[in-house]
Amino acid sequence: MSTMRAVQVVRYHQDLKMAEVPMPEAKGPLDVVVRIGGAGVCRTDLHILEGQWAEKSQVELPYTIGHENAGWVHAVGSAVTNVKVGDKVILHPLITCGLCRACRSGDDVHCENNQFPGIDTNGGYAEYLLTSARSTVKIDDALEPADVAALADAGLTAYHAAAKAAKRLTPRDTCVVIGAGGLGHIGIQVLKSLTPAGIVVVDRNPAALELAKSVGADAGVLADGTQVERVLELTGGHGAEALIDFVGEGGATAEGVRMLRRAGDYYVVGYGENIDIPTIDIISTEINIIGNLVGSYNDLQDLMALAARGAVTLHTQKYKLDDFQQAISDLDAGKVRGRAILVP
Amino acid sequence: MSTMRAVQVVRYHQDLKMAEVPMPEAKGPLDVVVRIGGAGVCRTDLHILEGQWAEKSQVELPYTIGHENAGWVHAVGSAVTNVKVGDKVILHPLITCGLCRACRSGDDVHCENNQFPGIDTNGGYAEYLLTSARSTVKIDDALEPADVAALADAGLTAYHAAAKAAKRLTPRDTCVVIGAGGLGHIGIQVLKSLTPAGIVVVDRNPAALELAKSVGADAGVLADGTQVERVLELTGGHGAEALIDFVGEGGATAEGVRMLRRAGDYYVVGYGENIDIPTIDIISTEINIIGNLVGSYNDLQDLMALAARGAVTLHTQKYKLDDFQQAISDLDAGKVRGRAILVP
Amino acid sequence: MSTMRAVQVVRYHQDLKMAEVPMPEAKGPLDVVVRIGGAGVCRTDLHILEGQWAEKSQVELPYTIGHENAGWVHAVGSAVTNVKVGDKVILHPLITCGLCRACRSGDDVHCENNQFPGIDTNGGYAEYLLTSARSTVKIDDALEPADVAALADAGLTAYHAAAKAAKRLTPRDTCVVIGAGGLGHIGIQVLKSLTPAGIVVVDRNPAALELAKSVGADAGVLADGTQVERVLELTGGHGAEALIDFVGEGGATAEGVRMLRRAGDYYVVGYGENIDIPTIDIISTEINIIGNLVGSYNDLQDLMALAARGAVTLHTQKYKLDDFQQAISDLDAGKVRGRAILVP
Amino acid sequence: MSTMRAVQVVRYHQDLKMAEVPMPEAKGPLDVVVRIGGAGVCRTDLHILEGQWAEKSQVELPYTIGHENAGWVHAVGSAVTNVKVGDKVILHPLITCGLCRACRSGDDVHCENNQFPGIDTNGGYAEYLLTSARSTVKIDDALEPADVAALADAGLTAYHAAAKAAKRLTPRDTCVVIGAGGLGHIGIQVLKSLTPAGIVVVDRNPAALELAKSVGADAGVLADGTQVERVLELTGGHGAEALIDFVGEGGATAEGVRMLRRAGDYYVVGYGENIDIPTIDIISTEINIIGNLVGSYNDLQDLMALAARGAVTLHTQKYKLDDFQQAISDLDAGKVRGRAILVP
Repeated sequence: MSTMRAVQVVRYHQDLKMAEVPMPEAKGPLDVVVRIGGAGVCRTDLHILEGQWAEKSQVELPYTIGHENAGWVHAVGSAVTNVKVGDKVILHPLITCGLCRACRSGDDVHCENNQFPGIDTNGGYAEYLLTSARSTVKIDDALEPADVAALADAGLTAYHAAAKAAKRLTPRDTCVVIGAGGLGHIGIQVLKSLTPAGIVVVDRNPAALELAKSVGADAGVLADGTQVERVLELTGGHGAEALIDFVGEGGATAEGVRMLRRAGDYYVVGYGENIDIPTIDIISTEINIIGNLVGSYNDLQDLMALAARGAVTLHTQKYKLDDFQQAISDLDAGKVRGRAILVP
Repeated sequence: MSTMRAVQVVRYHQDLKMAEVPMPEAKGPLDVVVRIGGAGVCRTDLHILEGQWAEKSQVELPYTIGHENAGWVHAVGSAVTNVKVGDKVILHPLITCGLCRACRSGDDVHCENNQFPGIDTNGGYAEYLLTSARSTVKIDDALEPADVAALADAGLTAYHAAAKAAKRLTPRDTCVVIGAGGLGHIGIQVLKSLTPAGIVVVDRNPAALELAKSVGADAGVLADGTQVERVLELTGGHGAEALIDFVGEGGATAEGVRMLRRAGDYYVVGYGENIDIPTIDIISTEINIIGNLVGSYNDLQDLMALAARGAVTLHTQKYKLDDFQQAISDLDAGKVRGRAILVP
Repeated sequence: MSTMRAVQVVRYHQDLKMAEVPMPEAKGPLDVVVRIGGAGVCRTDLHILEGQWAEKSQVELPYTIGHENAGWVHAVGSAVTNVKVGDKVILHPLITCGLCRACRSGDDVHCENNQFPGIDTNGGYAEYLLTSARSTVKIDDALEPADVAALADAGLTAYHAAAKAAKRLTPRDTCVVIGAGGLGHIGIQVLKSLTPAGIVVVDRNPAALELAKSVGADAGVLADGTQVERVLELTGGHGAEALIDFVGEGGATAEGVRMLRRAGDYYVVGYGENIDIPTIDIISTEINIIGNLVGSYNDLQDLMALAARGAVTLHTQKYKLDDFQQAISDLDAGKVRGRAILVP
Repeated sequence: MSTMRAVQVVRYHQDLKMAEVPMPEAKGPLDVVVRIGGAGVCRTDLHILEGQWAEKSQVELPYTIGHENAGWVHAVGSAVTNVKVGDKVILHPLITCGLCRACRSGDDVHCENNQFPGIDTNGGYAEYLLTSARSTVKIDDALEPADVAALADAGLTAYHAAAKAAKRLTPRDTCVVIGAGGLGHIGIQVLKSLTPAGIVVVDRNPAALELAKSVGADAGVLADGTQVERVLELTGGHGAEALIDFVGEGGATAEGVRMLRRAGDYYVVGYGENIDIPTIDIISTEINIIGNLVGSYNDLQDLMALAARGAVTLHTQKYKLDDFQQAISDLDAGKVRGRAILVP
């Protein structure tokens, strides 16, 4: 049996460790083994190490982490028809069953029998990864796995919320984006591609606002305590038709709701605090609070179509797989600009 | 100048008073004067007398209350084309401008320049009422104004929420209704007409559950502390695809959210307490919290189409206009079965 | 190797023949072998024998026909999670790949790699049938395979068109149904379950109109040359908001279009003649002509939910599998009331 | 009574004539008198002179033509709240009632009681025009009436169809545009603003294809007999998800239908020939044929929002009102590049 290198969680509250582990094989008919070209290093990985996911995932240690993966198809099961060996691919974060009601409706993120590589089964901080044909999206020749890997989860979440918002926005509308960090940065680009509505970005960091404007925001509002008033001014006193909240803590939601127009939509993406609103306010303004999970397989296909034409880009900082500890440390220390990517 | 009898708020915290006031006239081109056939006596009217609406409505006393009105067209302005003198009509509760963005989109309840007869201008506890062609819905010959008046506001609110929910429900889905009182009673009938989805009603009152089943509910669940578990059982452990909350207080919302399936919709109609949910719960289940105000003019037309074929009925207890004090007292004492209606 | 009895096409323009053939086995991971409880005998089967499908299907003779099948799960492949041995099931007519864009969107009837048992591979005039977990819908205990088999294709087509129409209909609207035969009969029941819109049925046969009214039509219009005028009268001179045409020949489409309201929707289900309309008429009235194929897997689940509560029923005439020739002959001679079903 | 200059149809098959006519006044409560800043000269105006509209419009001669109008508000009726004297405005081509079902649904182009200035009542080849508050859209300070007037009808029609198509398009889809003339030119710009879908333009004129690409088309296909094959090649052999046909004659529709993917949408805008398709083809591919009239008032607001940000522009050739005959002659002779505009 051949082996490969993989970075594993050995014990919680302890550093990750490089290990020699068995190469995955495509035994099942829909199995796909992917040679990793890039694996995103995400804040969630830090949380996993701290044991925050232990109870929820029930994963048995040791296992390989890494849930934002892209690469090349290395081997396929007998029933795989959508990709072939050698194809450049990005991987949807979930492995889904294809048979439950959610899967049959194209709403696969609510699959009743899913696995989540890097969270509850082996992930992509490795040379190879086992996934399913149902999770494999072929990418354009112009794209490189290491450049797009971080779109597999963080980017896909931003896409999902922005695409839902865009579906209801018209050229006369305004969409507020709270938070111009990693997800917000992608969300703004997606909005710019999908809707002519005005985009107003709110952030505490003036540099983030500048970056936001450089990728498509029509206006930036500094979150200095006057942000609600400023957004109301920018929207003719009415408030915005939609708001995507990539922050969800530190009072963002209470302020965000005040930025909404009557019958407006509040898209929750970031999390931390509670949504806490009097029911009388919800009904008298007839607003909607809309939850957002990661995007579906179709969403990832759509996002890759945007990436292929250069409409969505992401700054990445690449590390060799052997330098995994450096990547983790840099992320923890706030030294990564854009996203850190491990390249085997 | 001719006069008419009208029941007025003379001072807050003081009984209503019958007065002789000028007859309204159809001076403006879209004005419609309606001879009242029935005016619903609503809990809001009690709140008005207690002064709870004084600041919000800024209405000048004395004025005539009554915001659920139906009758016959008595006079019309020069530009009225949708009704003619003698037509039986029910009145949308708002007088809307027809020119703002909301009005131009059929979403007239968000009209930027509206008036609300019975709340901020003269209402229908009277022989005649002044409204607009834009608020006037012709009703079927088979219906009587006094029988449908209470559908103008309470019923319309229930219709609006139920119709929004029905649009997304399939034959395999379940819709939970919390609260089988006045609005819930209408909501169940509307759901029954608009969707084949299963209807599960939750209420603290066993008699209300029986009534609910008699008008179309597939199952009744007593709110005795086990209601969340019971709803989960009735929905295969998944929870319901939609829930309409006509209560909105006493812990209803926290329990209601637990009755929802992943990606489910929570329709807020009743109010009192706060919606208070961790953002992490909203995103991880991807649920939506949907506000609901009174229905639009189109909704009222649709509701009257259902009423015309007997699909929505309402128990009423009629009082002569002169007996207005009795109606108010009976309502306050909980002695009204269904809705109290004043008939001039 | 065990064998079973199956009715096969041996040569075109020749009678079907009973044969002893190998039992199908569940070798593939998603394979499902179903013990047939009922197989619908359909006019398409007559056309197959006449060789009309030979070129299109490219099927190699001999093979087993029968494309409307229901029964009990007899064996399942290793990856099947949605049904288990012994379950009562109805079968979606197509075996779909689950990986192409259409399948991933819940729109599986447009699968790019489908098989069609009974048409291009072995079907259900047999004791057992090989299908896929992706085509298998578990039915309610209250339903019997032989009673619902004909809903698998004919009924599913009617459901699909009626459900699309219902999504856009309101209580004030009218839906015209042209043709109250087999499909129309199901379509009317589906409309009745899904929408409160008025249902007006047009047919040349007075008995069919009576039957239509008994299952939910609000009005019947005899197609005696005055049908367009009659429909216009019944719709206040405006025409209907939607029309489902289950005929599609003999001038039905030209007449049907005249029954539509401005901005109305014309659902094409029956076929035979050409849609032939001046573009100027399409744009000046802004009507839509909407194609309809058989329903999706989700549609079949929804239809079975309606059938389980008795909302959709079908008259059937059952024959033993050995009496297949009698069933075919009766159908050809117009002697079958409702649908003929072969029961092994 | 003051008078103004206006260009009138005096008799069919005879030249237009300048006349001194009474100034319109804002007598009705919703009346708006606009000082014309630009009136589009349209091919329809030539057809009017040829008497092609005489029977349909029933207009009494002489009357003032011109149905694409923009300018400044000169006077308003007592109930006008959406514009004030001095505002720069563009005019929706129809004057609508605001009370019929279509108007109450935001679908005002199907108003049951409309007037059409320039067609059945006095239009905009004049110094002033009488319209309604319901037809008046305030435009951005950055826009000039004479530059946008032609968007009022031709541009609005293109917007309406393109916006409907965009609502269903995803980043992976392709929209074919047949005809890169006046409407197509606007349609391409609108698609570019509203959707990231690929845009493939088909035209007989190589110069039109170049222009199309300069305003946003991703590919141009010369209609030289190979266009169907070329579109199929460009869409991976599948055909396009949507097609907007601005031609509608000369065989465009038969070819266009062959360019569609399964379940694709065919938007009819141009007219001339018949749509003539076998019903079997419509159902087996499940395509939709979608009619398109001019856009609604809301569509015009949206189009003006796009124009305000420079996303939709139009080449115009301006003429003084006195030179109306020159404009008409140039248009008839094919000498106008873009649209001819009369400026009083």
